[in-house]
Amino acid sequence: MTIDRRDFSKAMAGLALTPFALLAAGVARAEQEHGHTMTPALEEALGGRRSGHLAILLYPEFTALDVFGPHHMFINLWGEQTHLVAKSLDPVATDTGVLVQPTTTLADCPKDLLVLMVPGGTMGTLAAMQDPEIIAFLQDRAPRTQWVTSVCTGSLVLGAAGLLKGYQATSHWLTHDVLTELGATPVRERVVTDRNRITGGGVTAGIDFGLSIIEALRGRDYAETVQLFAEYDPAPPFDAGSPDKARPETKQILVEMFAPFVEQTHQVAREAMARL
Amino acid sequence: MTIDRRDFSKAMAGLALTPFALLAAGVARAEQEHGHTMTPALEEALGGRRSGHLAILLYPEFTALDVFGPHHMFINLWGEQTHLVAKSLDPVATDTGVLVQPTTTLADCPKDLLVLMVPGGTMGTLAAMQDPEIIAFLQDRAPRTQWVTSVCTGSLVLGAAGLLKGYQATSHWLTHDVLTELGATPVRERVVTDRNRITGGGVTAGIDFGLSIIEALRGRDYAETVQLFAEYDPAPPFDAGSPDKARPETKQILVEMFAPFVEQTHQVAREAMARL
Repeated sequence: MTIDRRDFSKAMAGLALTPFALLAAGVARAEQEHGHTMTPALEEALGGRRSGHLAILLYPEFTALDVFGPHHMFINLWGEQTHLVAKSLDPVATDTGVLVQPTTTLADCPKDLLVLMVPGGTMGTLAAMQDPEIIAFLQDRAPRTQWVTSVCTGSLVLGAAGLLKGYQATSHWLTHDVLTELGATPVRERVVTDRNRITGGGVTAGIDFGLSIIEALRGRDYAETVQLFAEYDPAPPFDAGSPDKARPETKQILVEMFAPFVEQTHQVAREAMARL
Repeated sequence: MTIDRRDFSKAMAGLALTPFALLAAGVARAEQEHGHTMTPALEEALGGRRSGHLAILLYPEFTALDVFGPHHMFINLWGEQTHLVAKSLDPVATDTGVLVQPTTTLADCPKDLLVLMVPGGTMGTLAAMQDPEIIAFLQDRAPRTQWVTSVCTGSLVLGAAGLLKGYQATSHWLTHDVLTELGATPVRERVVTDRNRITGGGVTAGIDFGLSIIEALRGRDYAETVQLFAEYDPAPPFDAGSPDKARPETKQILVEMFAPFVEQTHQVAREAMARL
């Protein structure tokens, strides 16, 4: 189904024309002009309705880039709302102490979600895995969410809520093996999709993950436009970003440094599974 | 010069062992054990001293990922402090309304900096280019800063302060030509270094830029460790992230959508140059 140009202009006139609204509108227009089929969600958006909700969980000491990589992609989904959800509306400190303001609480977060995303971290993530309120929130929303997702060690929090049992999943490479403890099958890929679970690897994998979500919700044309707008044509100065590509001594530094953390994560994972 | 292992342990015992401190310490230890030369900055850091300051400018409607990509790299520079600098300590809203708390003000920001970084945005960036307080701050700090830098349209703010005159630079691809207006020579690369100016392309280029800064300040071994920790082994789902690689119709959507913004940016750039 296509949309009449006059209806389109009318819909646009009544909306705040942020760059992101413009982006979505531009894609819609292109789809219209080139005869592509519009997704129902985008059709709804053009009618000015907020059709769906994406929620990113914030907990103390989350890793900022785990959130703001995917968030940058999500906010291009004109017609949807992206929420930053925390236990209260108090600012939440990232793992380096930057304070970020949540937009809603666990209690007030919409019940039915398009996407639920859990970011990673280190010590803060261990705390989240053991936090009954967070675990209860994830267990409540997951069955009513189209895509249950995580970036980095966020998968361990999903796992601690029992949400990865029997699923293929990934995590930061340092904590990959912990997934087994949580009943999941670890897969060494940057973004792993198994039914409606999508998990991303460490930190920067959130950007690739975020684009995958855009594709899942809006299709490839839309996702490519978002990618070009974000100028995502990565050119790392070195080819050292995965444990397979890094020099062994580089990898060894991190393995040794994080050995106590990883050990503790295994322990917390076992305890979480015992509680389920 | 190397450091005695006992001194090293002593220095470590007195420090908060955040993952980032551990990361830096691990690299230092590896450098020590493998006989690499330590940088003076890292030696200082091991003595527990804060040796330098990095500052990221926040202004209303900055793009969050422009900041949190490089920020994620900067915070791995154990021994340095990374500041989020704004006109006041009030939370600053990103271009999508997320509130982020600055850590210092333009007035209180350290005078001598290792890195000064300006993020991009759209309408908020135009406002920053015309803000006398922000322009005065940049003009004051730049001569006392080791690396004067930007991500995305942040280069237009540097340019509006007269700081790119006679320099090669880059920007978001949509505003590339505006650099000429600001007396700079636009170069189509993801990260452009000319003397002590380093400018990054659109949004996600901040991650490549951030790693380049780590290399500039600490060397390649250190930068590779940070890259592996951030698992920066990008795998975009599509090869559509630059105007040269994107399909012409995708590019055209964004060119048309942002034509009014780009035109306005040219105008603001001309006015800024006239004021200098």
